[in-house]
Amino acid sequence: MHEKRIALDVMGGDLAPDSTLRGALAACDTAGDMRLPPQRILLVGDKALIEDKLAALGGNPGFAIQHASQVIEMADSPASALRAKPDSSIAVCVGVVKQKHAGSIVSMGNTGAVVGAATLGLGTLEGVRRPAIAVTLNLTGHPVTLLDMGANVAPRASDLAQYAAMGAIYMRDVVGTPRQRVALLNIGEEASKGTDLLKEAHVLLTESGLDFVGNIESNQIFNSVAEVVVTDGFTGNVVLKLMEGFSGFMLQLLLKELKSHAAQWSESALRSVRKQIDYAEYGGALLLGVDGIVIKGHGRSDAGAVANACRQAARALDADVNSHIVSGLASQSARA
Amino acid sequence: MHEKRIALDVMGGDLAPDSTLRGALAACDTAGDMRLPPQRILLVGDKALIEDKLAALGGNPGFAIQHASQVIEMADSPASALRAKPDSSIAVCVGVVKQKHAGSIVSMGNTGAVVGAATLGLGTLEGVRRPAIAVTLNLTGHPVTLLDMGANVAPRASDLAQYAAMGAIYMRDVVGTPRQRVALLNIGEEASKGTDLLKEAHVLLTESGLDFVGNIESNQIFNSVAEVVVTDGFTGNVVLKLMEGFSGFMLQLLLKELKSHAAQWSESALRSVRKQIDYAEYGGALLLGVDGIVIKGHGRSDAGAVANACRQAARALDADVNSHIVSGLASQSARA
Repeated sequence: MHEKRIALDVMGGDLAPDSTLRGALAACDTAGDMRLPPQRILLVGDKALIEDKLAALGGNPGFAIQHASQVIEMADSPASALRAKPDSSIAVCVGVVKQKHAGSIVSMGNTGAVVGAATLGLGTLEGVRRPAIAVTLNLTGHPVTLLDMGANVAPRASDLAQYAAMGAIYMRDVVGTPRQRVALLNIGEEASKGTDLLKEAHVLLTESGLDFVGNIESNQIFNSVAEVVVTDGFTGNVVLKLMEGFSGFMLQLLLKELKSHAAQWSESALRSVRKQIDYAEYGGALLLGVDGIVIKGHGRSDAGAVANACRQAARALDADVNSHIVSGLASQSARA
Repeated sequence: MHEKRIALDVMGGDLAPDSTLRGALAACDTAGDMRLPPQRILLVGDKALIEDKLAALGGNPGFAIQHASQVIEMADSPASALRAKPDSSIAVCVGVVKQKHAGSIVSMGNTGAVVGAATLGLGTLEGVRRPAIAVTLNLTGHPVTLLDMGANVAPRASDLAQYAAMGAIYMRDVVGTPRQRVALLNIGEEASKGTDLLKEAHVLLTESGLDFVGNIESNQIFNSVAEVVVTDGFTGNVVLKLMEGFSGFMLQLLLKELKSHAAQWSESALRSVRKQIDYAEYGGALLLGVDGIVIKGHGRSDAGAVANACRQAARALDADVNSHIVSGLASQSARA
């Protein structure tokens, strides 16, 4: 029974412990297919605090509590915090799993501390050299798991192949998708694209026996072409945080439009939003550093985007940007 | 005069030549502050075709035309296409700039061909080792230039420092922002974060004399903390295409909501959209590969997200995913 328990790091996260305790209660309250019995959750953190909070929230429905006297803060440096706070809630979570008092950890706390404590404390699975952080996006009924989202910024090609295998198994057995197509995140579809790491990973994945569909570009993540998308931890972290920041930004824009249009909210408002986020409205991509002004517009540019790109070229020419770059770089190297 | 001309690659792009010719006309038609005189645009491409099309569009308002007999297609391999098609519209564009018959190129064509032709044909600016592709996002009145968006997937740290200097000059002189704060795209704010390349670039940028604000994470691109964001061409390309794919995906969701709600479109529809794109709805990030189920939720998780993360942990435990990973990897290495 204990091995099916979830050790919940009550103290971790910006909104903890309120959010974590309310979350534990919600997981056990919900009607429907996924109500957890309270016995499956082990609360880890300051025991007196947890008991007080639970009393205020209507009582403890049956959670076990494991005391932890310390907390690793979100801003703490992971490695030194793990050394300095051996009785932190996250370290205790790892300890209870190690001792088989629980089989799982849920933490909203410091990512580096969670990854570090789990990797060192639990060790990697047999055959796994490096763990990966996997995130599943539920894209309108087509879940996609992306990994690694930041555990290891410099993986080997064989690590990427392992991520793929782990991700496919996760999708099959936990998420339950009928297919587990694996794609490698790259900047072009051809096998010859990208860094040496990716070329080597492409070879390994082709030979892996997985349902490998090849390289995809990041815009294809949303096109239901694969259920597992593999990348290094640096790129993955950039992707994850970009989606977070960008969706927040877009929704802010939408809310602003919504308020100013009230009942008139319509497709024209959406077009206005698209205009504000579309770089084609500004022009195209500028090739900085060649001896000339080179604008690369989007291949699907319409007339308006082409006109914008022309105006952008005119602005760059009028500003004589290249001679400024030459002199700016010269003065920079003179200073160096 | 000629050096202020813009050589427009009429043949390049998915919608060319219609979009490019209409774009050239639009650039000269528009009322307001940025109407270009037709004499500033040199059309490059199939001369007879261009004359026919212009006649059908109401006549040539005064564009000069430079004939090019070949076209590099979007799907062509850049390097071999540039060799096989020496009279392609993009090669001719580069030629006219080299001969000072124009000062700028605008192309919607094959990116690799544009970058390759421009870099080889025009050479880099004095002091510049590698060019960078810069894209300016017009974020609700706060433009941000990101570079490199894909010219060079493996830059040196000194290249990144050059990109920063070029980007800052571009923002000052062409876009005209009052400040030119430079940020380095990374996966954490501390100087010690990221790859060796980024650590070295951080040192160089700190010493550069630029208004360097340090590392930023990708979600901060939208927070008006910098006017110039520097990254390698691989990461930049992933970022750019992700924004493209993600915004298209979000707008599709929004249109669907809009249609089903009609006049009832409201903040609840936005919440429904957010729910569909928010990975916290699915749970948290899963640390795959450690000997235990480790879910890392978002630091700002609310109770609902914590509950989802707990359910996700339960699903993973119930599916016994780790033993499947171990056996899956074992059979994979047995096969290898």
